[in-house]
Amino acid sequence: MPLAVETTANGHTPTPLKRSSAQPNGTVKHIIDPVLLAKPNLALWVTKDHKLYQTEEPYPECPPDQCVIHVKATGICGSEIHFWKSGRIGDCCVTHDLILGHESAGQIVEVGANVKGFAVGDRVSIEPGVSCWECDFCLRGRYNLCPKVQFSGTPPSHGTMRRFVAHPARYLHKMPDSMSYELGALVEPLSVAYNAVVRAAPYLGQPVVIAGAGPIGLSMALCARAAGCHPICITDLEENRLQQARDFGFDRTLRIDTSWDRLETAERVRAVMGAGCMPSIVFECTGAASSIYSACYALENGGTLLQVGCGKPDVEIPLMSMGFREINIVTSFRYTQSWPVVLRLVADGVFGDVTRLITHRFPLEKTIEAFETCADRSKLAIKVQIVDE
Amino acid sequence: MPLAVETTANGHTPTPLKRSSAQPNGTVKHIIDPVLLAKPNLALWVTKDHKLYQTEEPYPECPPDQCVIHVKATGICGSEIHFWKSGRIGDCCVTHDLILGHESAGQIVEVGANVKGFAVGDRVSIEPGVSCWECDFCLRGRYNLCPKVQFSGTPPSHGTMRRFVAHPARYLHKMPDSMSYELGALVEPLSVAYNAVVRAAPYLGQPVVIAGAGPIGLSMALCARAAGCHPICITDLEENRLQQARDFGFDRTLRIDTSWDRLETAERVRAVMGAGCMPSIVFECTGAASSIYSACYALENGGTLLQVGCGKPDVEIPLMSMGFREINIVTSFRYTQSWPVVLRLVADGVFGDVTRLITHRFPLEKTIEAFETCADRSKLAIKVQIVDE
Amino acid sequence: MPLAVETTANGHTPTPLKRSSAQPNGTVKHIIDPVLLAKPNLALWVTKDHKLYQTEEPYPECPPDQCVIHVKATGICGSEIHFWKSGRIGDCCVTHDLILGHESAGQIVEVGANVKGFAVGDRVSIEPGVSCWECDFCLRGRYNLCPKVQFSGTPPSHGTMRRFVAHPARYLHKMPDSMSYELGALVEPLSVAYNAVVRAAPYLGQPVVIAGAGPIGLSMALCARAAGCHPICITDLEENRLQQARDFGFDRTLRIDTSWDRLETAERVRAVMGAGCMPSIVFECTGAASSIYSACYALENGGTLLQVGCGKPDVEIPLMSMGFREINIVTSFRYTQSWPVVLRLVADGVFGDVTRLITHRFPLEKTIEAFETCADRSKLAIKVQIVDE
Amino acid sequence: MPLAVETTANGHTPTPLKRSSAQPNGTVKHIIDPVLLAKPNLALWVTKDHKLYQTEEPYPECPPDQCVIHVKATGICGSEIHFWKSGRIGDCCVTHDLILGHESAGQIVEVGANVKGFAVGDRVSIEPGVSCWECDFCLRGRYNLCPKVQFSGTPPSHGTMRRFVAHPARYLHKMPDSMSYELGALVEPLSVAYNAVVRAAPYLGQPVVIAGAGPIGLSMALCARAAGCHPICITDLEENRLQQARDFGFDRTLRIDTSWDRLETAERVRAVMGAGCMPSIVFECTGAASSIYSACYALENGGTLLQVGCGKPDVEIPLMSMGFREINIVTSFRYTQSWPVVLRLVADGVFGDVTRLITHRFPLEKTIEAFETCADRSKLAIKVQIVDE
Repeated sequence: MPLAVETTANGHTPTPLKRSSAQPNGTVKHIIDPVLLAKPNLALWVTKDHKLYQTEEPYPECPPDQCVIHVKATGICGSEIHFWKSGRIGDCCVTHDLILGHESAGQIVEVGANVKGFAVGDRVSIEPGVSCWECDFCLRGRYNLCPKVQFSGTPPSHGTMRRFVAHPARYLHKMPDSMSYELGALVEPLSVAYNAVVRAAPYLGQPVVIAGAGPIGLSMALCARAAGCHPICITDLEENRLQQARDFGFDRTLRIDTSWDRLETAERVRAVMGAGCMPSIVFECTGAASSIYSACYALENGGTLLQVGCGKPDVEIPLMSMGFREINIVTSFRYTQSWPVVLRLVADGVFGDVTRLITHRFPLEKTIEAFETCADRSKLAIKVQIVDE
Repeated sequence: MPLAVETTANGHTPTPLKRSSAQPNGTVKHIIDPVLLAKPNLALWVTKDHKLYQTEEPYPECPPDQCVIHVKATGICGSEIHFWKSGRIGDCCVTHDLILGHESAGQIVEVGANVKGFAVGDRVSIEPGVSCWECDFCLRGRYNLCPKVQFSGTPPSHGTMRRFVAHPARYLHKMPDSMSYELGALVEPLSVAYNAVVRAAPYLGQPVVIAGAGPIGLSMALCARAAGCHPICITDLEENRLQQARDFGFDRTLRIDTSWDRLETAERVRAVMGAGCMPSIVFECTGAASSIYSACYALENGGTLLQVGCGKPDVEIPLMSMGFREINIVTSFRYTQSWPVVLRLVADGVFGDVTRLITHRFPLEKTIEAFETCADRSKLAIKVQIVDE
Repeated sequence: MPLAVETTANGHTPTPLKRSSAQPNGTVKHIIDPVLLAKPNLALWVTKDHKLYQTEEPYPECPPDQCVIHVKATGICGSEIHFWKSGRIGDCCVTHDLILGHESAGQIVEVGANVKGFAVGDRVSIEPGVSCWECDFCLRGRYNLCPKVQFSGTPPSHGTMRRFVAHPARYLHKMPDSMSYELGALVEPLSVAYNAVVRAAPYLGQPVVIAGAGPIGLSMALCARAAGCHPICITDLEENRLQQARDFGFDRTLRIDTSWDRLETAERVRAVMGAGCMPSIVFECTGAASSIYSACYALENGGTLLQVGCGKPDVEIPLMSMGFREINIVTSFRYTQSWPVVLRLVADGVFGDVTRLITHRFPLEKTIEAFETCADRSKLAIKVQIVDE
Repeated sequence: MPLAVETTANGHTPTPLKRSSAQPNGTVKHIIDPVLLAKPNLALWVTKDHKLYQTEEPYPECPPDQCVIHVKATGICGSEIHFWKSGRIGDCCVTHDLILGHESAGQIVEVGANVKGFAVGDRVSIEPGVSCWECDFCLRGRYNLCPKVQFSGTPPSHGTMRRFVAHPARYLHKMPDSMSYELGALVEPLSVAYNAVVRAAPYLGQPVVIAGAGPIGLSMALCARAAGCHPICITDLEENRLQQARDFGFDRTLRIDTSWDRLETAERVRAVMGAGCMPSIVFECTGAASSIYSACYALENGGTLLQVGCGKPDVEIPLMSMGFREINIVTSFRYTQSWPVVLRLVADGVFGDVTRLITHRFPLEKTIEAFETCADRSKLAIKVQIVDE
């Protein structure tokens, strides 16, 4: 659809860009500015030896069941910092150069031949995981566990950190006109938290702890509050993050002192919850071994540790003590069926002003700088987004 | 503890009032005004032939495991209007004169000899159901289903609509100093709604309908919203009740037109929910046969009718249609383990300003007038409370 | 693949039969006897005016994602007797002539061009419901609730009561060599019962009642016993069916006397369960209004009525009495993800000798006689199957 | 009630034994042989320095809410071997000499003054955990989590390994006349397994692994099979234990080779389950760190590790890998509300012939020898019981 042939750097072979003579699905609803389409399709790559670089990729082919989206906002996820700095998360390793990105929203600029229900100009939030719909997990409605899932920006699938990307229409979700692309891109991290709270299935008024006040911790806190958890205590090592939590209205915060041992931490968490109100769910958003161990002790008898955060592959848990108190561990991975609900909740303001999660914005051309800001704890970033008008 | 012998009307034998020389449990924390204790213990009775009357009862004995409470606020429940006007609810019949009342909060004026943890002057909300702790249901934590439960103001147990009442300490719950007695008395109807929402176990963002915008319907809406249900549509026959719902911030309301048939009502309820958002729980708070039938049709496949309201003993349901769509019916009865949680939620303002549920207040001496107001639909009452300073 | 052109009776236009020159998927594993393929494709039709007739249909086309199956065993379902005699079940009506049949197993005689994993000669049990995999219900793993489902032999989709039928490969399930086609055809009614017991989620040792000892009632009893329900009491109006239940090892049976009123029935059901052992699930397999009403009263506080049987569209339930005791109604519709599990359970003998459910067998040519036997209560049929070698 | 004063060894002060002149509750139903009551009340003690000894204790006082039981059969639990050999399990330490024993059944020889429903001569199985009925956990029906529970034979509460013991009537469960005391004593370990399977809430046909074929592993397998788990694979390090499993009809067994690493073990467990049938629950009954780690890898995506066995306080788990696959850990502690159900299941033969779990029996006088047999792996003991006629 773009008007001109693009050239790319870094030896990637460009393909000639073609412009469809007509909309595949009926009347033209929206005219995409030719100037936009002529812009270079800048993509952000990570290498297995911990480098980042940008290239100019060709404008993508549009397969029959997909749409091409102009990506207007993309958040940087903590997992991407892991892929860059460590080259892996668990068994998932960067073995080849990979385009990152999976927290995106944008505007449709081309619609595949078989796609129904979408038109050029539609504003969409992108659900990044594309599953097979043939395995048992897809049949059971747990498509996040599909062993064949292709997840944007996670090895071996390329991601959305480029100007133009093709994505299956089934995984595009229309945004209300009133919702900004920034909000649309926040649906992904909010979906991670949403899935965790749905798995925890808290009762109204259940006392919970959120361990970690980074972007996932704060998203988790917003979802837990919306789901009726109360009271909510948020813990972190860093005061500025707790201040951010308080700015969102979470009054019970606890700065963890690294001089405390694991049991003292557990005691102090219990104390800050208040009398007669022990934590019965801990949403663990740090992935840190000491936090996980302490959480098991902080929990009320019969409580649940809900693991959301990522960390080292193996951790130690006090399983016998947990067994004497019927403490469970529940893990949560990505999400299923979350987009329609989370879009509705965000659009209707149920979470409050979630744009406040976004502390830094960078233009697409400065994506590498955005990553450096995100990785630099002194920058006090929560969510860093890359935007493209 | 009162200073003088009381006399009663209506042939009830008064017993001499005695004043303990000392607090049974340690130091005196609070002095109860002798003038208060000398006031008549006015009680509100209902008869099997649909009459109400008030008597002056003796100040109550205080058994070793109980406390005597000066009842400062009591709400009138719809079930009490049923007992008065119809003489029964289901199989539960008024066969003898009965003191009504089960939505109460007040101040402790006497503490039983074996009671620990309470002192004269403590401000408490009263949980009215006293169960046996020996049957299977009590063992299983479902003490609301105890066949031997003694429930205040429900045949054959006398209730709390009197100035002074003795109640087992196990079922008294301390209120924060900041909470008014009016709020303390609202914990009971909110507990009814709380139990229903806990049984429904909604997921965050689940679309629900509240059928009925009376006191239970509005309490239900407040609990459902706090538990993350969204969107919430509230229906009623009367516009003024829907206005009350909108005043609480529930924007989606639907006035049911009695000219609609049951399927049309179902269609209109679905329509008001919005596109792509079918009701998957209906909290049925009217007990009306037509509302129940319509709700079964309004529900999304796989949805749940949560029956909260009371009505005629038998109702007709479209069971085969429900079976083709795996629609379930869940019923909710009173509550278990709700007081500590609901008190915390009310005290912390999670429900917003629930005192707005109270549209009318009457002094204890005008209890009968309070009932008449409550039963008169033209008075547009939501919650009517009886208060005694 | 058949060798000759077939002709049909009753004005149905036959299409010329073609034989593929080679197997679409690799080597020939199995040779289908040409004599079989030349046999007429006899089909059983029901009309909206309550008639049954058989025709000779053309050998079916084999779409790319389907296989053609030689149907070797098909059970008659009670729902088919309903469609024949009443012309409808609930809102589902016979408006045009329809081929019945949905309880079938057979052998693959042709494999579609895109099909992987199946070969001619494979022995398969047929899952009859073909859903859309695009709607919310399919996404959630509840594909039985798919509004677009095409279900064999249910209006408007034609069924399996013919010699040869094409069916999507996704819904074919290979049977172990040791399993007879009769057993393969029983997987369908056992799946109905399986889905109900999975929805009921009984705990080990939960006391249950099975109301009705017909084919679904007995299948339900077998599944409930395998799932750990105990004790199990089975009720029916007819002694011979209860004898069948006892022959399966269910010792607690109760013949319902139609002279009993609904509450007396409830009392007698409770009595037969034994001391300290009230029914906490009733699997209602009759669909009869009086049985449903009685079941609500027979249940222990907190119990569940699991509706499996079909009956008149609307029924009366004692909702207020149920509400006082937190009795729920759960409905169960067809099945999801059941075939692999039920096949495994049947193959490994977990249910015992389920072929005993089959009391009558008829050749394909006598399908109408099979229906008449099934509908004639004096024939004491449980499951009637149509078989074709 | 005994006729004579007993004397004890080891400096324990005996109290004079008295015999009540009459039954507290009505007519005499049963005469206890005076010769029995005159026998020494032999008790088995463990010390914090890992010694066992027996004493002659006085016949016990019978408090008003308790009964005195002549203990006729008592199993030795693996936890008691831990207390003897290691002096602790988790945070629960032997700090003073303690009478062991909590798997017991016997006959009532004296009934407390306030006890209703029991008579001398009643045959009872003893539920050993006595909880407070005042805390939140008791209110919620999870009385096994009561922080004030007094559990027989677990520090600091003395146990049942003596001839006569007093126990609260609330925790005594009448056995059918047809059930042996040996079976009555097996209700306790079966209750441990029962609680685990109820917490796991398997669906009918769910594939499971039982890690460990000792007494808890085999009890677990029996409960899992009765609850509909299928197929069931049992693993152990020792062939003789697996043979015992096969003797119970569990055909899928796997001897773990200690030369395998943790991932190889996981692969081999998966392989033995059969095609298309991955384990979705592992009941971990060994407590061994390597078994727990392997189980997390053997589980199907979305599966659950149900921890039943005891081991070292802390274990390492592959939490990130589990998180990518939504693997959960559920722990199970003792039991609630299990006795009536398990007694019924055992009495009705649902588990088959569970007496085969008992491989060794010793008279009360040889209790120490029984412990030595139990601790000696070469003796190939499963369940060792101490019996007293």
